[in-house]
Amino acid sequence: MITSSADPRPADFTDVRAANLAVVLRFVRDNAPCSRADIAASTGLNKATVSSLVADLIDRRLLREVGLTEHRVGRPATMLVLDGSPYASIGLEINVDYLTAVAVDLSGERLLSWRRSFPGATATPAQAVSAIAALTRRVISRMTRDRRQALGVAVAVPGLIDTGGTVVVAPNLGWRGVDLAGDLAKALHDPGLPIQVENDANLAVLAEHRFGPLGGTPNLVYLTGEVGVGAGVILDGRLRRGGQGFGGEIGHIEIDPEGPACRCGRTGCLEAVAGIGVLVSSTDPAKVEPEIEEVVRRAKAGDRPTLDRLARVGRDLGKGIAIATNLLNPEAVILGGYYVPLAPWLLPAAAAEAGDRTIAADLGGCRIVASTLGYGAAALGGAARVLDSVDSGRLPSRPTS
Amino acid sequence: MITSSADPRPADFTDVRAANLAVVLRFVRDNAPCSRADIAASTGLNKATVSSLVADLIDRRLLREVGLTEHRVGRPATMLVLDGSPYASIGLEINVDYLTAVAVDLSGERLLSWRRSFPGATATPAQAVSAIAALTRRVISRMTRDRRQALGVAVAVPGLIDTGGTVVVAPNLGWRGVDLAGDLAKALHDPGLPIQVENDANLAVLAEHRFGPLGGTPNLVYLTGEVGVGAGVILDGRLRRGGQGFGGEIGHIEIDPEGPACRCGRTGCLEAVAGIGVLVSSTDPAKVEPEIEEVVRRAKAGDRPTLDRLARVGRDLGKGIAIATNLLNPEAVILGGYYVPLAPWLLPAAAAEAGDRTIAADLGGCRIVASTLGYGAAALGGAARVLDSVDSGRLPSRPTS
Repeated sequence: MITSSADPRPADFTDVRAANLAVVLRFVRDNAPCSRADIAASTGLNKATVSSLVADLIDRRLLREVGLTEHRVGRPATMLVLDGSPYASIGLEINVDYLTAVAVDLSGERLLSWRRSFPGATATPAQAVSAIAALTRRVISRMTRDRRQALGVAVAVPGLIDTGGTVVVAPNLGWRGVDLAGDLAKALHDPGLPIQVENDANLAVLAEHRFGPLGGTPNLVYLTGEVGVGAGVILDGRLRRGGQGFGGEIGHIEIDPEGPACRCGRTGCLEAVAGIGVLVSSTDPAKVEPEIEEVVRRAKAGDRPTLDRLARVGRDLGKGIAIATNLLNPEAVILGGYYVPLAPWLLPAAAAEAGDRTIAADLGGCRIVASTLGYGAAALGGAARVLDSVDSGRLPSRPTS
Repeated sequence: MITSSADPRPADFTDVRAANLAVVLRFVRDNAPCSRADIAASTGLNKATVSSLVADLIDRRLLREVGLTEHRVGRPATMLVLDGSPYASIGLEINVDYLTAVAVDLSGERLLSWRRSFPGATATPAQAVSAIAALTRRVISRMTRDRRQALGVAVAVPGLIDTGGTVVVAPNLGWRGVDLAGDLAKALHDPGLPIQVENDANLAVLAEHRFGPLGGTPNLVYLTGEVGVGAGVILDGRLRRGGQGFGGEIGHIEIDPEGPACRCGRTGCLEAVAGIGVLVSSTDPAKVEPEIEEVVRRAKAGDRPTLDRLARVGRDLGKGIAIATNLLNPEAVILGGYYVPLAPWLLPAAAAEAGDRTIAADLGGCRIVASTLGYGAAALGGAARVLDSVDSGRLPSRPTS
């Protein structure tokens, strides 16, 4: 049996037990329905160990038995599937003009998906914490009503989040040095509930990687199509955050030295030439979506100035995408947020421009596509992040309901 | 004992044996001198297994015993160290104006380091293969004279190398679709010798990560300072090549839309504004180094036009570096090749420009430094790549000498 050669320390018993519980849970997630014998055969754990682990997971209401097999050789075996009915994983997002909340069960099935306008750009951090806490409480109430306990909460923020979870700076929200996780924990009065904070683009790409149609693609880049443009980067199957967690900051790379001024103080940033703010003028968060819908309406009607503007934004977006295709060579670049309804016009221009600028032929095999996860992508990614923690062994003890 | 949960198949005996041999070899590499008991305690393998593995490795002349301990509790134990004296790992590089070859022993000690002018830009692929083969034969002869057997050869090429090892395109050499590994194997008449081909920037960053003063840094970017500018990217401790192996192509990202034409056909590429070709005019490979030395001499003498030109190149280089610091957030960016002698003038300008353009404060914690590995960095990386194969379990059987 091969020991983990990356870290050859004597294993702590608790760690081994937790790791093995997670191994069994992941196996059932990917192979349900399956028997204890299936688990033993695949994981290499002996049958007595598997029985003990399965009993533990059933006790925690993470697995359940679903009856006997009929079509196999030998003695009928009791099959196992994920339970998870007493649990929910919660993700939220705060952005310039909205708040979203998503809850999923253990297998990733969506339980709820809410969105409300919110003036993130003008609210103070304290007001934002208050609103996020209120939304979280409503989600938890709904889950409690459905006899589910929250496994954890993760919040997507458009900014630089350090490895400790502090929002170092979120320029589009006007935040600097905000301990969102700590403030939220205080506001929720729930010291046992794990709370994580992560960059919105990072969580969106996690959502795509776990739940999207390109799920499992080893090298994936997601671009947020919001007022801010950020990138979430998955390489060799894992999120790459960089040394301080500040990776993926594609929005303020200079695309056009002669371009418009950017809110960041520089000129011609990707955000300034190809962020959604180029296409909508309203600063009222409740009006952004209707403006986008108007742009779509005009484009469909063949309005020349609209089509020209979309083509130009698409080309500039393609210049940004080419930075990612050249440097990272991903199998796919996924455009999210407000880029999605505009994709029919943005994608062809972006793909053509990126194709011209990518050294490898055919974009190095990269497909540029629109996200199918909707506006809740980053919040869904938050829920995925909570499930990742469960997968890593942070399992709930017995449920309280 | 935790099984490898990433791939829960029943383990093949040969794979387990090879993997365990590699585990022991790596442990001794990192902890020599050490005893069999040390190996058992750290790896979790039982003592009988360790004894068997150690005997195997001694038999293959990869480990050797060096006498008894004196200062420990209990029975004196025989200590083990890497042997490797009958082996050599060989790396080569072909580039626009030179060929280099490096040989190292199992612990990474340099055995030889050669460099010769070579007109890579004008030679045909066949002439280049011939020259590389001739150089390889000379290195192997020298190793044979020193009673060492070549474990393998890896060649650095400035171009797009697919995951199968074919040189898809190397624009600065004028190559397209060259099966360098296959051609070299034929030229060397040595079917048993493993030959790998890899992008030069990728191998250089491997050399820095394994042998350089910043060795082990988890997130590292190396920029080749040659006629071509390419990036090798290490994130979370491993080389990131992208979906088709074409990552790190930073040289043709547009830095200045109004900039000079690039050999690639585009305008204002990083290579065209900040590649070494901006500072030297000679197309004769033997003259590049003397020209660089002249630039250094003039800069030291305070020649104003030279200093201005270096400052401008430094700033443009900084614009390219900012793409890497923003997108990847590495702990360090290492400038190699001809950037090294020019570092005293390039680095300050590059760091200032990159600092202005990086969203995170203080470049996100990134240090921009000059390589200390010399012109042989990519070839050294080739030798590192061969050692990586050994570390992964591709061990030689009994040596022939």
